[in-house]
Amino acid sequence: MDFPTKMKAILKAERGLGLRYVEDYPVPRLKHGEVLVKVQAGSICGTDIHIYKWDEWAQRRLKPPFVVGHEIAGTVVACSPEIEHIAIGDQVSLESHVVCNTCYFCRTGRAHLCEKTQIIGVDRDGGFAEYIAIPAQNVWKNPPEMPLTLAVIQENLGNAVHTVMAQDVSAKFVLVTGCGPVGLMAIAVAKAAGARAVIATDISPYRLNLARRMGADRVVDVRHEDLAAAIHACTHGEGVDVLLEMSGAPSAIDQGFAALKEGGEAALLGLAPGAFTFDLNAHVVFKGAIVRGIVGRRLWETWYQARGLLESGALKLDGLVTHTFPMGDFEQAYHTFMSGQSGKIMLIP
Amino acid sequence: MDFPTKMKAILKAERGLGLRYVEDYPVPRLKHGEVLVKVQAGSICGTDIHIYKWDEWAQRRLKPPFVVGHEIAGTVVACSPEIEHIAIGDQVSLESHVVCNTCYFCRTGRAHLCEKTQIIGVDRDGGFAEYIAIPAQNVWKNPPEMPLTLAVIQENLGNAVHTVMAQDVSAKFVLVTGCGPVGLMAIAVAKAAGARAVIATDISPYRLNLARRMGADRVVDVRHEDLAAAIHACTHGEGVDVLLEMSGAPSAIDQGFAALKEGGEAALLGLAPGAFTFDLNAHVVFKGAIVRGIVGRRLWETWYQARGLLESGALKLDGLVTHTFPMGDFEQAYHTFMSGQSGKIMLIP
Amino acid sequence: MDFPTKMKAILKAERGLGLRYVEDYPVPRLKHGEVLVKVQAGSICGTDIHIYKWDEWAQRRLKPPFVVGHEIAGTVVACSPEIEHIAIGDQVSLESHVVCNTCYFCRTGRAHLCEKTQIIGVDRDGGFAEYIAIPAQNVWKNPPEMPLTLAVIQENLGNAVHTVMAQDVSAKFVLVTGCGPVGLMAIAVAKAAGARAVIATDISPYRLNLARRMGADRVVDVRHEDLAAAIHACTHGEGVDVLLEMSGAPSAIDQGFAALKEGGEAALLGLAPGAFTFDLNAHVVFKGAIVRGIVGRRLWETWYQARGLLESGALKLDGLVTHTFPMGDFEQAYHTFMSGQSGKIMLIP
Amino acid sequence: MDFPTKMKAILKAERGLGLRYVEDYPVPRLKHGEVLVKVQAGSICGTDIHIYKWDEWAQRRLKPPFVVGHEIAGTVVACSPEIEHIAIGDQVSLESHVVCNTCYFCRTGRAHLCEKTQIIGVDRDGGFAEYIAIPAQNVWKNPPEMPLTLAVIQENLGNAVHTVMAQDVSAKFVLVTGCGPVGLMAIAVAKAAGARAVIATDISPYRLNLARRMGADRVVDVRHEDLAAAIHACTHGEGVDVLLEMSGAPSAIDQGFAALKEGGEAALLGLAPGAFTFDLNAHVVFKGAIVRGIVGRRLWETWYQARGLLESGALKLDGLVTHTFPMGDFEQAYHTFMSGQSGKIMLIP
Repeated sequence: MDFPTKMKAILKAERGLGLRYVEDYPVPRLKHGEVLVKVQAGSICGTDIHIYKWDEWAQRRLKPPFVVGHEIAGTVVACSPEIEHIAIGDQVSLESHVVCNTCYFCRTGRAHLCEKTQIIGVDRDGGFAEYIAIPAQNVWKNPPEMPLTLAVIQENLGNAVHTVMAQDVSAKFVLVTGCGPVGLMAIAVAKAAGARAVIATDISPYRLNLARRMGADRVVDVRHEDLAAAIHACTHGEGVDVLLEMSGAPSAIDQGFAALKEGGEAALLGLAPGAFTFDLNAHVVFKGAIVRGIVGRRLWETWYQARGLLESGALKLDGLVTHTFPMGDFEQAYHTFMSGQSGKIMLIP
Repeated sequence: MDFPTKMKAILKAERGLGLRYVEDYPVPRLKHGEVLVKVQAGSICGTDIHIYKWDEWAQRRLKPPFVVGHEIAGTVVACSPEIEHIAIGDQVSLESHVVCNTCYFCRTGRAHLCEKTQIIGVDRDGGFAEYIAIPAQNVWKNPPEMPLTLAVIQENLGNAVHTVMAQDVSAKFVLVTGCGPVGLMAIAVAKAAGARAVIATDISPYRLNLARRMGADRVVDVRHEDLAAAIHACTHGEGVDVLLEMSGAPSAIDQGFAALKEGGEAALLGLAPGAFTFDLNAHVVFKGAIVRGIVGRRLWETWYQARGLLESGALKLDGLVTHTFPMGDFEQAYHTFMSGQSGKIMLIP
Repeated sequence: MDFPTKMKAILKAERGLGLRYVEDYPVPRLKHGEVLVKVQAGSICGTDIHIYKWDEWAQRRLKPPFVVGHEIAGTVVACSPEIEHIAIGDQVSLESHVVCNTCYFCRTGRAHLCEKTQIIGVDRDGGFAEYIAIPAQNVWKNPPEMPLTLAVIQENLGNAVHTVMAQDVSAKFVLVTGCGPVGLMAIAVAKAAGARAVIATDISPYRLNLARRMGADRVVDVRHEDLAAAIHACTHGEGVDVLLEMSGAPSAIDQGFAALKEGGEAALLGLAPGAFTFDLNAHVVFKGAIVRGIVGRRLWETWYQARGLLESGALKLDGLVTHTFPMGDFEQAYHTFMSGQSGKIMLIP
Repeated sequence: MDFPTKMKAILKAERGLGLRYVEDYPVPRLKHGEVLVKVQAGSICGTDIHIYKWDEWAQRRLKPPFVVGHEIAGTVVACSPEIEHIAIGDQVSLESHVVCNTCYFCRTGRAHLCEKTQIIGVDRDGGFAEYIAIPAQNVWKNPPEMPLTLAVIQENLGNAVHTVMAQDVSAKFVLVTGCGPVGLMAIAVAKAAGARAVIATDISPYRLNLARRMGADRVVDVRHEDLAAAIHACTHGEGVDVLLEMSGAPSAIDQGFAALKEGGEAALLGLAPGAFTFDLNAHVVFKGAIVRGIVGRRLWETWYQARGLLESGALKLDGLVTHTFPMGDFEQAYHTFMSGQSGKIMLIP
């Protein structure tokens, strides 16, 4: 099969603010174990903003130049010859973490903790481009009829599924602090799994509106409402059984733990700006709470769970992708994302 | 407060077939720790049929005379004076197992396995009567607005919730073998908890019709359809992740395990007629399956889970109670139940 | 049976520093559900020191006068008549938490989180006295041959067992930060359960010496040794799988989490002096760690676990009780405890 | 590096009874992802006997000719060039299951259930030979000082560790039915993990003697002793918490379940001769038991657990290897194994 040698791509071209759109990036060549995917869409994640802004984390980790973008859906157009379980024409989404398969974590079903993980669009070329070459083990096959707006967000949906499924939420009161995209999807997942009620907090009316659409039973704008009182009313004074922390805001974390019932469980995905004053006694020890740090997705259990929930029809994500842009208009797309006035934003090569 | 001294009741009056309806049974007196409940409704369970029929189990266990009936809803009308957490006027359902509180199981959160459990309507006076005296610890308070058709079946619903919640069903393929009342409720519970799909089997079109109403994605009349083929089609050839065995029929148990995926989980509530030829190698060992015996309800975790699912709105049981009779017409009620042409049947004192 | 009407007792007699030893405290009378225990020994716990010192916590919680002491072993000398499962002459240890049996937590096998718990020697009369009246449900029967030095520390041992058993430690690297009595017992419990190695930290050579005696494979005096380097050496660079935090010292908590492997588990029993700067990102989120707050003992699973480990012979606690005093010498006993130059200290009425 | 082209090997040379020892089998060539191991020792397993005897299972599954032997220890002498984490000179044991990495089970941390697993010495050339070529992912590095008698049995030890660790055994009564090699190792593992007591059954005094050596607190020769009475005496009438079924004998399975406490857990590794009459009601449903089928080893969690227990010193397996033969004397070795008068038997190329 013949492919062009050059392609369009969004690059982190050099150390510093911003990104660059080019039309002559080399189309990647396959290595042993890899497939080539023609990208149909990508979507923007908070990590992409850190890369764009060249913040401290970005300066420490990134080694430009490279193609950005790690939430990717597309079509397989070539396979390294020894690959048997993937075929040209397969509709796929990509797992963004390329793991080593040989470390303790990879060998014990916890590859999301791989010591040598490389993330596409961060540590190696990503998928905001026309093509991406990626290990076959990172490919997830989609049913042919899956809408692109769903296929493209599945990687990010995995963060939400991982967070929600880290504990049992069926028949329980669930508080989601922070209604960015992962928080929004966590609301929908918790509802699909039979939560007793889902309460969601944010400081953006736009996002709280989306939270309602995702199925939140109660949304709380913590700028104007007292969360403790709202929780008290919603939970008959019990407090919540499960806290899903998606904001990373120290105030939200504190309020979230304060709302947690004795013996409750908290899953923390949001990243605080840094260390902060935290009351382990009140929030964890005296409560007999269980707290889980959430990083990435469980490979591949989370993907299977997401598939099951989507297939059941219980998980509804309509309306989550609010904007679509061509990749050439990436500046506008990124700025829309940064405005907070969006759900997920899709980029088309 | 004044109560009458005599009341209507359905009795297992003597050793032998049948029951007797009387109007002059003594209204029970309260002991320390007990409350008196004015019965609003009872519902019939398979165990009640064994008692009626005086089968081998009944002959071994029962010591007539006693009031039958263990699925009961009513109103608290008197409390032993030291009781603080229950009040006259409370709308309640009853847990049927009176447990000892002092054995190993009671002391480790597994009172459903209590060594000295006594079941109302089996080992002590039950609630197919105008009044029942029962330990306060057996009382579950309902919201005042709960319909009687729901309040009365909650004890039995607990069996279904216990079975379904014994393993995680969210995002999973679930097979329910046997669509008696507990199987029907298990379908609804599994759907509420976000099962990927629920497949239900029976040999009664009446019950399969109710199964559809409870939310089954696929019903299979195993007299006329090949279950293996149906499972293969429904699950993309994967098999089911979870088997909920509600029938006790050896053929259903065999077919159910055959349909189970490697590493799958089975919860067994149905009681076989006796020991039978079972292939532990194929069904359990080679599969790496996990099999759980289900007896009673988890006290009181199951009740809280049922409440959470009902409150969420995800668990819908409308239409499950198909018949209502006055207690005086118990013969007709029991025979309707035995005909297999019913869902739950309610008795009104 | 005749009992004296007055007894010796150590009292928190009034609001303020210190305790008072008296010889004319009324012997308690039995209420429904209670037994009377003739105390053979008590042992001192950190909480007793807070009560003695009248610190902020004590000022907020305590309502003198009352008998102190909550780690108690003795003999049953009288039972309320309805009690069947306990007999006069039973050798017993006491669970210190008197729970309500009716709240959500009591009803779901988590009575250690009871909303209305009362602790003997804190919220009601304790057992540093000749007699204590206590609900029968708080009594744990010991084998007659159990040495008093073991019977008396079982309540406190329960804290250690609860902490260790909150996660699986078999075949795992375990770090115990803080070698007070509970830390010391946790070392012995983790060894009994087959930990790969137990590393223990403290700043007291006396306690580190006891830690070695309890079976620690490696002890680290963090005043003089670099914990990170020690952990690296002991664990082949892996870090520990399990952190058991017993000190409450922010520096120890930080070092402990830093030593924890990705995906590791931490059980926190130690109470920090207050909120402090904690790096949730590094310690919990990025690590995918699981953190459990530990409060009290699981009723009664922990007691059964302690019994099993003691019976097996794998759990060896010889040498843990380092001092014994008559109750009249309580000042000396308390000051020995406060000196840090002791293991457990026993008081004899 | 130069290797000979021919080697000694024990072959299943053709369909039918027996094996053949040859000295001119081709030394295997490396494929992508493979390493070449110079075999230092193999050990004999029950599966090897099925292969020797050409029983029904063997006739159905095997495709001679191939080299037998799947419990193998040796030294890496060559690596496919892309392999980075294994080096020439590494002392290794081999995982016998070559898994596909792409099926649902491989992708969710349950590769022991791989749909396409191939076992060395069964489905592809094994290691009763001078050399074996095997995927690098099947290699487990041993510490250089590990005795060969331990290195060689680690694969089989994994079956025991998997069975024991499938549930928590610390502080619990454990019954091991069947003292073949896996049963014997299970005894030692359960003791290392702090079982309250381990009771072991068999019908061979030779094996029961080894059971004692492995640490069983009580051994029962079920030909001469009443197991129920022995269990009653050992467990203060409680019954056992955990059943580890290693015999596959229907009578042992029945007796084992009869000995199991309500709410107990059973792990079944032994394979019955076929389906048999089993009382699911009494053994599983009424008991609220949890039953787990055990197949293979968890990849690679079981290996890590075995390492941790061995490193701790708590797991002692001295004396388990009772015989050593040169591979040329394989007939004598196999017949010794079949006599039942042996522990593990080691073969040296």
